[in-house]
Amino acid sequence: MAWSPRRSAGRRLQLPLLCLLLQGATAILFAIFVRYNRETDAALWHWGNHSDADNEFYFRYPSFQDVHVMIFVGFGFLMVFLQRYGFGSVGFTFLLAAFALQWSTLIQGFFHSFRGGYILVGVESMINADFCAGAVLISFGAILGKTGPVQLLLMALLEVVLFGLNEFVLLSLLEVKDAGGSMTIHTFGAYFGLILSRVLYRPQLEKSKHRQGSVYHSDLFAMIGTIFLWIFWPSFNSAPTALGDGQHRTALNTYYSLTASTLSTFALSALVGGDGRLDMVHVQNAALAGGVVVGTSAEMMLTPFGALAAGFLAGAISTLGYKFFTPILESKLKVQDTCGVHNLHGMPGVLGALLGVLVAGLATHEAYGDGLESVFPLIAKGQRSATSQAMHQLFGLFVTLTFASVGGGLGGLLLRLPILDSPPDAQCYEDQIYWEVPGEHEHLAQGSEETETQA
Amino acid sequence: MAWSPRRSAGRRLQLPLLCLLLQGATAILFAIFVRYNRETDAALWHWGNHSDADNEFYFRYPSFQDVHVMIFVGFGFLMVFLQRYGFGSVGFTFLLAAFALQWSTLIQGFFHSFRGGYILVGVESMINADFCAGAVLISFGAILGKTGPVQLLLMALLEVVLFGLNEFVLLSLLEVKDAGGSMTIHTFGAYFGLILSRVLYRPQLEKSKHRQGSVYHSDLFAMIGTIFLWIFWPSFNSAPTALGDGQHRTALNTYYSLTASTLSTFALSALVGGDGRLDMVHVQNAALAGGVVVGTSAEMMLTPFGALAAGFLAGAISTLGYKFFTPILESKLKVQDTCGVHNLHGMPGVLGALLGVLVAGLATHEAYGDGLESVFPLIAKGQRSATSQAMHQLFGLFVTLTFASVGGGLGGLLLRLPILDSPPDAQCYEDQIYWEVPGEHEHLAQGSEETETQA
Amino acid sequence: MAWSPRRSAGRRLQLPLLCLLLQGATAILFAIFVRYNRETDAALWHWGNHSDADNEFYFRYPSFQDVHVMIFVGFGFLMVFLQRYGFGSVGFTFLLAAFALQWSTLIQGFFHSFRGGYILVGVESMINADFCAGAVLISFGAILGKTGPVQLLLMALLEVVLFGLNEFVLLSLLEVKDAGGSMTIHTFGAYFGLILSRVLYRPQLEKSKHRQGSVYHSDLFAMIGTIFLWIFWPSFNSAPTALGDGQHRTALNTYYSLTASTLSTFALSALVGGDGRLDMVHVQNAALAGGVVVGTSAEMMLTPFGALAAGFLAGAISTLGYKFFTPILESKLKVQDTCGVHNLHGMPGVLGALLGVLVAGLATHEAYGDGLESVFPLIAKGQRSATSQAMHQLFGLFVTLTFASVGGGLGGLLLRLPILDSPPDAQCYEDQIYWEVPGEHEHLAQGSEETETQA
Repeated sequence: MAWSPRRSAGRRLQLPLLCLLLQGATAILFAIFVRYNRETDAALWHWGNHSDADNEFYFRYPSFQDVHVMIFVGFGFLMVFLQRYGFGSVGFTFLLAAFALQWSTLIQGFFHSFRGGYILVGVESMINADFCAGAVLISFGAILGKTGPVQLLLMALLEVVLFGLNEFVLLSLLEVKDAGGSMTIHTFGAYFGLILSRVLYRPQLEKSKHRQGSVYHSDLFAMIGTIFLWIFWPSFNSAPTALGDGQHRTALNTYYSLTASTLSTFALSALVGGDGRLDMVHVQNAALAGGVVVGTSAEMMLTPFGALAAGFLAGAISTLGYKFFTPILESKLKVQDTCGVHNLHGMPGVLGALLGVLVAGLATHEAYGDGLESVFPLIAKGQRSATSQAMHQLFGLFVTLTFASVGGGLGGLLLRLPILDSPPDAQCYEDQIYWEVPGEHEHLAQGSEETETQA
Repeated sequence: MAWSPRRSAGRRLQLPLLCLLLQGATAILFAIFVRYNRETDAALWHWGNHSDADNEFYFRYPSFQDVHVMIFVGFGFLMVFLQRYGFGSVGFTFLLAAFALQWSTLIQGFFHSFRGGYILVGVESMINADFCAGAVLISFGAILGKTGPVQLLLMALLEVVLFGLNEFVLLSLLEVKDAGGSMTIHTFGAYFGLILSRVLYRPQLEKSKHRQGSVYHSDLFAMIGTIFLWIFWPSFNSAPTALGDGQHRTALNTYYSLTASTLSTFALSALVGGDGRLDMVHVQNAALAGGVVVGTSAEMMLTPFGALAAGFLAGAISTLGYKFFTPILESKLKVQDTCGVHNLHGMPGVLGALLGVLVAGLATHEAYGDGLESVFPLIAKGQRSATSQAMHQLFGLFVTLTFASVGGGLGGLLLRLPILDSPPDAQCYEDQIYWEVPGEHEHLAQGSEETETQA
Repeated sequence: MAWSPRRSAGRRLQLPLLCLLLQGATAILFAIFVRYNRETDAALWHWGNHSDADNEFYFRYPSFQDVHVMIFVGFGFLMVFLQRYGFGSVGFTFLLAAFALQWSTLIQGFFHSFRGGYILVGVESMINADFCAGAVLISFGAILGKTGPVQLLLMALLEVVLFGLNEFVLLSLLEVKDAGGSMTIHTFGAYFGLILSRVLYRPQLEKSKHRQGSVYHSDLFAMIGTIFLWIFWPSFNSAPTALGDGQHRTALNTYYSLTASTLSTFALSALVGGDGRLDMVHVQNAALAGGVVVGTSAEMMLTPFGALAAGFLAGAISTLGYKFFTPILESKLKVQDTCGVHNLHGMPGVLGALLGVLVAGLATHEAYGDGLESVFPLIAKGQRSATSQAMHQLFGLFVTLTFASVGGGLGGLLLRLPILDSPPDAQCYEDQIYWEVPGEHEHLAQGSEETETQA
């Protein structure tokens, strides 16, 4: 893991070659397998008699765009809080997510929309690929600043496959409900990243400690990420649900849950803060836990009160996690979690899965009416009781934790390959290794000089 | 109002306890009163025979999301212009708006969608709650930097109630048209905040004068707020109007009005600026006045020319207000208006109400055809003449000014309670009182050090 | 071109007077010519029997809003990378685009929606006006920092007319397909700006060289622009296409193309970078080339693989252009291209036009089925062969290059009028000439002072 300013040609070529290799491979697979689906293909759509207004585009594309903002602006800028890793945060988010979208189109396509030898794509596959990219970025948050782009791309290569497999087991085999991905996205992404970070444990990381915090402006940049994530989370959870009341209710529940996690975050942050002061780390992260915690249950008849209660709890747990659990995680469990994904995605994700167990177990024909068919088709058909659905939901959580842990472990071993260009302990959280970084303040001297000239 | 670095336990606990109390109270009220409406409830929506495409979600949710961006990103970042109050600007916006959304769901619900003992919620109530949060944030703009979060939450507690009451009087009793809220949102929010600021007048505020301006980067952050507000204003004004041509025309009129207020702002800013230079304060604020001024009339047959003329006038008045009226407001009327909400929301709001009087008074069956029913139902039914509708509109403005003034006065008295933790005169516009603030430039020394090491 | 700190009254009044003149002129023309179209007019829409859901607003307004974000946030912040020109970048974008929206409503209206003596406006004209503003901002990118606002407004005045004329020739006379504007927007805007920059060539520009680069924070601000452009480009290309599969397929193709240009940009940037480091200039710009290159062909049956291949190629060419071609452009061809629009819009635009030639030439009844009518109506009706359509597409590119070159030349001569207030060579890329610029770091001294007081 030694690093020298002048890298060998071999190391310099790793990133370009890997990018080209991955792009070449997905392009060939696209050529062989990926085709427009019935709603995007000119010939297929115009065959038969239906209105353009029925095209799924109009029901899901606005939500897709909101999700797209969350993945690229939301995750990207949320991680810019590090004072010297802004380029890496937003830049590697960009690279990782762009690759994950392509790769996940293939993996999820094989599992979910493989018809007649072809993967059929449209707005739903676009949303699903963004969701998978979200999980990859959550894992990235755990190891932010401690890995190079080649390592990150290899992580994505592995994680996307396991994400697709886990999602297939939950949604298609267990027939578990998880529209907003409390399990498939948040729990999976967080524990994959945390176990991976455990395998990559750096005992000497305090050499980079001075770079691990924020500065005033980097905290404001991070708030751009936070606020866009917060605003669009109702679209995230509702993007893939049943149309009509399903999307409507999911968005509404998520909206309420987030308001409550915001209030509990401010309350708890001031309560545990030194001298009653608020901590931007809490506001930037824990306030979002309300979106995570209703990822499974928001499409169900959670009730507006249920949404508030869930959000409140998630914000509180998340804030307390940042204050008390993250230090223990590092000192006792040797898990260095740069962004605190355990607090934002891990615990709220598990809590969200359990909330899904509860709300599914309470499902009745009275509460859902004929809408039961959309939310719990197996219960509506009499093939499962509500209790049985709840047990399947619970089992889905264990499956997810298993996939995430095994996957994170494998990922960690992969990323420890000595050939890979990892930053040294004293150069973590530092853009200069991977980026041309401009000077910070040439213009200051210049500026005052000019002011004088003009005076 | 004395402040010491080490606050007593009592003061430290004010914010957490108030947050918990408010959240607890709204949660209980939600449990008792708030239920899904017909379009979000699984059983109700699936009862009967209609297409998912008819769900109101698809007609209003994209506009809702645009409004949501305006409230949280727009207002939040617009106020980040203060050099040392970025955390407070964006953070307290976040807190205040999150609380206002919950509280306003209850208050507006009692007035507007209380059926059979329950408040029924869906995308329309989400939009309305965001609108109310907008009014609260406008008032916040007048007192920005001079009040603590406990004071702000109490202000919101009061203001949301009066906002709901005023809105009920205008829309339900007077049957006044005000889709984009020139009166209910902008005029109300501005004068509530200005009167409140008058009651909180600080004669010694010049002790914090050096912190009241912007720096280069904070002005760029503020432009994020400005531009998102400007872009999405057509959605703001059109979100609650009648479907079809109503939303379409409202968005179009607002779009044109904003282009004209931008041109007049640049013209006037350069004209009154020292040496012909443009002032970012004007560009950040007055360019938006075109959205405010057509808040009442944009859904009417204003004509594209009318939209341009209105926007032009609003931008000009707003710019001149910043230059000439704000100083007088402080020196003569003892109203310290941090963000200049009188120029952006006050005067353009009143002007917008008057424009609504004019355009309503000109309404004819010829101009609106069968669409008259959607815009002016009472005129269409022959229950009111256009002149009578205009008089009602005018009366609505006076009602709004009365509610705002009385409410702002009450709010000021409430916020002066000595027990509340208000910043001292020398610590206004300063994040350090309420936030853990990271150092600004540790990384600089570090950065150059590393550069040397690597060289 | 001499510049002195104290400008004469005549020069100070140029900007205000020009703004007022232009606004007055467009307002009068609006009063005479611009009317609501059938979908925005109350009387016209309510005449006859149709559902509100059929209003075009619901099919195009969400895409319009995404385009609007790209024009004002995307272009505006992309150009903030300059360390001392942030106000000018985002501010003049705001001014120029606001004027272009009005002016283009008139010009495009005369060419495209002039019925019975009136220009009819609605959401389609809003999208088209934003597209024209995009072309103006691309040209602005070539001369960024080297021109004053009066010059820029005059450029827009001319460019909007020529844009409208060129678009009319392509879309209405040649019946060329160019939904996302590879030709009409990107190629036209880029070469107009480049030729204009050539005419304004400054041999002494190295006097401002120290201000031409970025600083750490300005690069992060620029990434806000990049990411929003990247995210919403699928909406840009699909906003004006045929409804149903047309919009759906266009968005999908653009989405894939952009992921590929991102991967090739990272690959090439690291490959050609010093010591294997990535360059933010490439990431900020070349990663977007995938959106430009499918501007013509994304609505066609490009296939997902075709989108990946096109995006890959565009990202690679664009990155190599920044590295190797921009310096030659300046040194040999005397074209000073501030933002490198030749690499982001010029070459990818031409490539996109040629890709359109290819894909149009391959159009068959088998591939498009009854959808051929929507994409290539003349081929569907048998009035043109696919080869003939391809030839028309190619001819459209030459027409565009001709209009852009002649227009850019005329624009350059116009902007060289000695009366216009152009910044001197030593004051390029500097906000202070046109803006009141606050100090940068008063708060630092202040901040540390306070910290001491509190300690």
